Amino acid sequence: MLIQRLTIIGVGLIGGSLARALKRVGACGEIIGCGRNESNLQHAIDLGVIDRYDTDPASAVKNADVVVIAVPLGSMPDMFTAIRDALSPQAIITDVGSAKTTVVASGRQHLGEHLPYFVPGHPVAGTEKSGVGASFAELFENRRVILTPLPETDLTAHALITTLWTQTGAEVVDMSVAHHDEVLAATSHLPHLLAYSLVDTLAKMQDRKEIFRFAAGGFRDFTRIASSDPRMWHDICLANREAILQVLEQFKTDLSQLTEAISQGDSDTVKNIFTRAKRARDQFSG
Amino acid sequence: MLIQRLTIIGVGLIGGSLARALKRVGACGEIIGCGRNESNLQHAIDLGVIDRYDTDPASAVKNADVVVIAVPLGSMPDMFTAIRDALSPQAIITDVGSAKTTVVASGRQHLGEHLPYFVPGHPVAGTEKSGVGASFAELFENRRVILTPLPETDLTAHALITTLWTQTGAEVVDMSVAHHDEVLAATSHLPHLLAYSLVDTLAKMQDRKEIFRFAAGGFRDFTRIASSDPRMWHDICLANREAILQVLEQFKTDLSQLTEAISQGDSDTVKNIFTRAKRARDQFSG
Repeated sequence: MLIQRLTIIGVGLIGGSLARALKRVGACGEIIGCGRNESNLQHAIDLGVIDRYDTDPASAVKNADVVVIAVPLGSMPDMFTAIRDALSPQAIITDVGSAKTTVVASGRQHLGEHLPYFVPGHPVAGTEKSGVGASFAELFENRRVILTPLPETDLTAHALITTLWTQTGAEVVDMSVAHHDEVLAATSHLPHLLAYSLVDTLAKMQDRKEIFRFAAGGFRDFTRIASSDPRMWHDICLANREAILQVLEQFKTDLSQLTEAISQGDSDTVKNIFTRAKRARDQFSG
Repeated sequence: MLIQRLTIIGVGLIGGSLARALKRVGACGEIIGCGRNESNLQHAIDLGVIDRYDTDPASAVKNADVVVIAVPLGSMPDMFTAIRDALSPQAIITDVGSAKTTVVASGRQHLGEHLPYFVPGHPVAGTEKSGVGASFAELFENRRVILTPLPETDLTAHALITTLWTQTGAEVVDMSVAHHDEVLAATSHLPHLLAYSLVDTLAKMQDRKEIFRFAAGGFRDFTRIASSDPRMWHDICLANREAILQVLEQFKTDLSQLTEAISQGDSDTVKNIFTRAKRARDQFSG
């Protein structure tokens, strides 16, 4: 057995799916859920996702071998503070936050002597749904999990968290904190931000009812993305602000160029941009 | 039988799927395909999509009761000119163009006495794939087809094209030309344009290989959209330029507001925009 006692703080889509995936392969002796919403935790027990729950983070992590923090990014600092003094000396801590710079800074500030046992992580997986009811054991299969270990990270802790995610069917890769945040700003955060902004633009239009009714393929994908949890994406946008603003600036420049070309009826430029994009997509996405 | 002889000019995803859907319900006596690429037309025969083909538009429409023009928007004027003198006096013509203002203007200019038998149309359906090999009979099921009849459109012609699309399982609605172009600019053209622009931005980044490799949910949807046919989308962007630029301007304003809020760490504004977008999506998209 990989882990005797695992505590998951935040039993939502990610935390719940991780619990299911680990239970499926018998990787844990006991999984303890923690959160503020007791009925959600009871629901998680009823679904067989966790074995028991505790609404108090400090007592939930007591004697845990591994603690997974799966709360919104904005709640990380408070959570570190809440559990720090209750952790076993060699308890291994990981998180699932979609931006890593702020989480790592917060860990450095609040985790004290536990810092070497903190392995920052990010499973690049999810759906637009949230809550334990939407969780499923296969969520991480063939998806990538990025770990951003620190210079002081304990090698055994790093190895164990790598194995934990491998057991869910994911491919685990290591990356620097800064590089993770740049790549994710480009591939995940900016697309979500554009989707929210577009849906908001259209929702303000006079014929919005009709607009949503006639949504074609392109727009349906956008609206699906924009139905993701606003709180979570708010936290991500603020936590990864710098990297997001940088890629957003480049996007705005490119969009202005395309707009100008359309406005001028500059056929060649429009065709070149579209062809280049399709080629990149076909080349890299296989 | 609804139509004795149907000619489809442009046997790609849309033209091919329409032929399949009509064959499935036995709505046509004979379906003639027309296009420039003879091997594609032969492929369409091999797949059982069309009964025979003719690479010359004028002879392909001879004695046809209904002619469906399913070529890129930029080729419409030439196509109208090519078939005009070969059409039977009461042959009914329709098209499947994603923008209607320019097609209608072109029809007025080139169709002469045939104009009353021209019923402009747009099936709001498609995939990112193109070509007859990607066509399937179910493409239009439960999708909407918008017709934009003109003041002079013959009522019988309008009724027949309505029935034609109803037979494919689509829901047919009428709309004014201008209104169609506004609604589609917002719901389909702008999302595609943003997708192309984003993929282009990311393809120019230094770590583009990694970026495409780590594409998460949000970005995968974007790249899928951006793999659509560049020629087709180029034509749409130029044909529906005015309506697209108008909604794009509004989008840019909203995006700047969101950017500013992120940049300032204005938590309330970010949360409000995301929440409003999600609410609109959940309310209207059901």
